Amino acid sequence: MCPKSSGLGLVQVYTGVGKGKTTAALGLALRAWGRGLRVIVIQFMKVGEDYGEILALKKLSGIDLFQYGRDQLIIKGKHTEEDVRLARQGLKKATEALSGKKYDVVILDEVNVVTHFGIVTAEEVMDVVRSRAPGVEVVMTGRYAPQPFIDEADLVTEMRMIKHPYEAGVLARAGIEF
Amino acid sequence: MCPKSSGLGLVQVYTGVGKGKTTAALGLALRAWGRGLRVIVIQFMKVGEDYGEILALKKLSGIDLFQYGRDQLIIKGKHTEEDVRLARQGLKKATEALSGKKYDVVILDEVNVVTHFGIVTAEEVMDVVRSRAPGVEVVMTGRYAPQPFIDEADLVTEMRMIKHPYEAGVLARAGIEF
Repeated sequence: MCPKSSGLGLVQVYTGVGKGKTTAALGLALRAWGRGLRVIVIQFMKVGEDYGEILALKKLSGIDLFQYGRDQLIIKGKHTEEDVRLARQGLKKATEALSGKKYDVVILDEVNVVTHFGIVTAEEVMDVVRSRAPGVEVVMTGRYAPQPFIDEADLVTEMRMIKHPYEAGVLARAGIEF
Repeated sequence: MCPKSSGLGLVQVYTGVGKGKTTAALGLALRAWGRGLRVIVIQFMKVGEDYGEILALKKLSGIDLFQYGRDQLIIKGKHTEEDVRLARQGLKKATEALSGKKYDVVILDEVNVVTHFGIVTAEEVMDVVRSRAPGVEVVMTGRYAPQPFIDEADLVTEMRMIKHPYEAGVLARAGIEF
């Protein structure tokens, strides 16, 4: 067992329209797992197994993954009751995970978007994030991080798109984009 | 075994001073590995095992890792012959890896910096990248990506630092920053 890291307990936000937000959170999960930290990934607005990261996490034991989404694209302003229910379930799971009993690193994947879409409010999410036990690190990803997340965070990186192959007509590729 | 991904063979660059470049490359490695793709991580200017990602890659078999660095900080303009020798070794390994025989995804971690520092030239690196077999994806990370890399790349993300805990006096934390 590796020694536990000290100084955990900060809030990290990865946002912007460039590629690499969920990917960076996954890399962080891998790195933390390599150090023997206990990691959970809670994905909002995603469901199903057709993601390389899910196939990977299933192959390696030690990083827990939970998904709270429907198998359908949500259009901003057109979400359903079911979307709200799922997002709230995700936040409930996050609250448990942040208690510090089971996890050192809690990744809330796409939580920025679920908030931007108005499915849950920034205040609901901030209440959950602020409820974390000392020493539990929180990582929030997704485009359009609302300002309260940025204000609360200790670390914020904006992924800026300089070039993207979608622009050149390349479709999302298994193992690379998802 | 998962089906192989189609459409591979592009060049991705992660640059900028924000956190998340190596981390995104690692997440990509994990995702690709989850899909059954063959992945190699070639790290420039890094050596030793005190990285969470290295501990992780040692725990999970299937992603190869090679390091070409000295256990000492390199100051720009003050690199040694040994640094040049190591970087060239790394490029030699990259050339082999890009042949397509053993790997689908080749990550050249910190190759941008090694070039910015003048340890190898952008042209030397571009020759290697251009030598890749069809279908081999290349990922290049590090601050200060030289313009030829950006021109050549299909995907470029700049990690912009909006906030960083180092600014607030927090030191790099095991399992999170390294």
